[in-house]
Amino acid sequence: MSDRTHVVVIGGTSGIGRHFARSCAQRGDDVIITGRSEERTKSVAHEIGGRTRGLALELAEPERIAAALAEVGRVDQLVLAALDRDHNTVREYRPADAIRLLTVKLTGYTEVLHALAPRMTDDSAAVLIGGLASHRPYPGSTSVTTANGGIGALVRTLAVELSPIRVSALHPSIVSDTPFWSDKPAAREAAAAGALTGRPVTMGDCTHAIRFLLENRAVNGVNLNIDGGEVLI
Amino acid sequence: MSDRTHVVVIGGTSGIGRHFARSCAQRGDDVIITGRSEERTKSVAHEIGGRTRGLALELAEPERIAAALAEVGRVDQLVLAALDRDHNTVREYRPADAIRLLTVKLTGYTEVLHALAPRMTDDSAAVLIGGLASHRPYPGSTSVTTANGGIGALVRTLAVELSPIRVSALHPSIVSDTPFWSDKPAAREAAAAGALTGRPVTMGDCTHAIRFLLENRAVNGVNLNIDGGEVLI
Amino acid sequence: MSDRTHVVVIGGTSGIGRHFARSCAQRGDDVIITGRSEERTKSVAHEIGGRTRGLALELAEPERIAAALAEVGRVDQLVLAALDRDHNTVREYRPADAIRLLTVKLTGYTEVLHALAPRMTDDSAAVLIGGLASHRPYPGSTSVTTANGGIGALVRTLAVELSPIRVSALHPSIVSDTPFWSDKPAAREAAAAGALTGRPVTMGDCTHAIRFLLENRAVNGVNLNIDGGEVLI
Amino acid sequence: MSDRTHVVVIGGTSGIGRHFARSCAQRGDDVIITGRSEERTKSVAHEIGGRTRGLALELAEPERIAAALAEVGRVDQLVLAALDRDHNTVREYRPADAIRLLTVKLTGYTEVLHALAPRMTDDSAAVLIGGLASHRPYPGSTSVTTANGGIGALVRTLAVELSPIRVSALHPSIVSDTPFWSDKPAAREAAAAGALTGRPVTMGDCTHAIRFLLENRAVNGVNLNIDGGEVLI
Repeated sequence: MSDRTHVVVIGGTSGIGRHFARSCAQRGDDVIITGRSEERTKSVAHEIGGRTRGLALELAEPERIAAALAEVGRVDQLVLAALDRDHNTVREYRPADAIRLLTVKLTGYTEVLHALAPRMTDDSAAVLIGGLASHRPYPGSTSVTTANGGIGALVRTLAVELSPIRVSALHPSIVSDTPFWSDKPAAREAAAAGALTGRPVTMGDCTHAIRFLLENRAVNGVNLNIDGGEVLI
Repeated sequence: MSDRTHVVVIGGTSGIGRHFARSCAQRGDDVIITGRSEERTKSVAHEIGGRTRGLALELAEPERIAAALAEVGRVDQLVLAALDRDHNTVREYRPADAIRLLTVKLTGYTEVLHALAPRMTDDSAAVLIGGLASHRPYPGSTSVTTANGGIGALVRTLAVELSPIRVSALHPSIVSDTPFWSDKPAAREAAAAGALTGRPVTMGDCTHAIRFLLENRAVNGVNLNIDGGEVLI
Repeated sequence: MSDRTHVVVIGGTSGIGRHFARSCAQRGDDVIITGRSEERTKSVAHEIGGRTRGLALELAEPERIAAALAEVGRVDQLVLAALDRDHNTVREYRPADAIRLLTVKLTGYTEVLHALAPRMTDDSAAVLIGGLASHRPYPGSTSVTTANGGIGALVRTLAVELSPIRVSALHPSIVSDTPFWSDKPAAREAAAAGALTGRPVTMGDCTHAIRFLLENRAVNGVNLNIDGGEVLI
Repeated sequence: MSDRTHVVVIGGTSGIGRHFARSCAQRGDDVIITGRSEERTKSVAHEIGGRTRGLALELAEPERIAAALAEVGRVDQLVLAALDRDHNTVREYRPADAIRLLTVKLTGYTEVLHALAPRMTDDSAAVLIGGLASHRPYPGSTSVTTANGGIGALVRTLAVELSPIRVSALHPSIVSDTPFWSDKPAAREAAAAGALTGRPVTMGDCTHAIRFLLENRAVNGVNLNIDGGEVLI
């Protein structure tokens, strides 16, 4: 085992996960990113460069997660950033899509910890990415809000069960420079206007916060909003 | 339609749900209880008496919920009390059991609201039963904690989406006189000792709180702990 | 000592406190209301009728509270509803007014509990009235928001210290039919529009909630919002 | 004005405040620390070294704060760490001491922001130090718990009022290497045992977290616990 930091980013092929993975690679960490498609994941790993490897992983099938992660070695820092963009409402509810999202973000995330905890050390830490929808629902967020509320509690049981491994969650509002939002200027501008800071949340802000949660040795079991203060107004 | 209050209790064959249903029946309400087994549900409905009917419903199969609730008429008060006692830990995780619990309590509850919302009026209200495990994990509560955290957020999106219908949640600690706990004296005594009130939480306390949440016209979207203050210490 | 319930309402000459006191008097309780002016307090007590007495009390002078409450006998239910309408902002801050408000709502409330706790029984309960401004600041709410945040924590330490006496808080948004708001139709209408319930919060809603918090034997140490769900959106 | 970061630490002569001030001085920042005693404050400023100046400030007299801070220039980062160790209980309550603590931590902190906000820029940020007692009362914490609850709400109104200036709070449990706790080994060991991380919180952890809250441009209006996860169990 090297002295390098070993980082695993679940859902590392785009958005916040990819941004964080790249910042790690640039520091010289050993990085593994996962994504649904093996081809795309390996291609993104190559783009990120440094010591980055890609691994195919489908969180919607938790029974297969452990096998897919078999080749992962020591894990110092684990980031769970995979998501499933389910647009669902209670009035026009599609249960199958909701089950899929909840499986990815709740059962899938937990199964990743189940599989990787034996490869983590007493100094390891994990960060789960939730979302502000937990506290601020928006049209179509029925299952996203539910999943993010589940994340908020999941970090509490994981921090207790995996002690002394630290586990926390980051809950972003709209992150303006992700591929998903960057071509939706109206939503992005509304988010910036809603933030008390007068500027939108960026992937850089999120990477900075993820690193803080991973590295601070006394912050544990917390849910941190990163929203520019939007939830206050 | 009669002037009587029409109450539906999902998971009404035992525990808190049954206790609440009986209190409604004794007031003369029209009550429908649901349970997994048609035979047992009808039998419990008969025991409860008054204007109580039993209906078989399996929340673990959300696609079939709407059909199973087809014969329900107007709904003034809806209580979602069904549960699934999954003992799970991240160290020895069984994803299939976790998925089942999350499906029952999150997707299943939401699908019940989807099916019944059109039969609710502007004055109707719903109460979801979560649990204190959301904030206070215990050994084996991995998926219970996660589900109850999801409930905490679910009431927020439901209150927004179904406005002006009111939706709140009640989060009990161990309820000492339910069938599940009444033969576990050590756990019951520990819960009573942990409560600042020096007495255990009872089904009667929960029924009183559910009725309050259903009837107060300005309390909405809240998560109310009922734990004797246990979470403070 | 009689079998009647002995109720003390601090700040019982108007608004929520007076409304709750009247509902108690109509049930036949022994009621003591307090207010700043002895004359006005006795006059309101007479208007409320039943077994209601008035007592002068100035919460802004905590050192004198114990003496002013010397004649109070057994206390079964205690409601702390006194307030001080301080309009303050950080940009044009008047520290003396802020200190006065914080003294009334935080030190004054605590001193009332200090004075009356020896006259409470194991079955007694107290409710403190805070306000939604704790979580949703509005222009001019600098010290009101701060005080209500203090109330939110104060119930936690009081519930622990006075165990098994129960202590909780109610946090209303604008209560439309109080004397203060009833002549401000624009603010009232905005509050009703902000509520998911489509109707404004009333004193009757608050009295119903206060009674619930006082009477439910397992709800303890909680902060309950009563806002029609306004805080969710 | 120089390009250096201008830092003001209120309560910078010992504990967390001093530790943070020293870390700033070592980076080359322009640092002003305040303390009650002019002599001691100037002496500590000299010990810290770098570009550190000491300024006498008594938060318990808010009317005099603005004058005492008159010579402070531009403020990029403001940390409010001053405290008043009031041991108080509701059973043996000393209102005058409670008023003093609440004045220092709530009115005093707000008045500092009132005085310094005009010298802050759109990119400035402030961090208030509260404490875990807000959510986890301990014997003697009556007014400390209340004050820290007030801090929790104060950051919300300040973030709204001072937008786009960012304002957040850090809530530590026992910080083991402060002068106050370092000679109380039993309490320190209990705190380390209570932390899920198995190690006590240090001033270094707090400085790391304060810097994060000051520097992350999208984290705003949050209350961050730093307790090793103690509040979860």
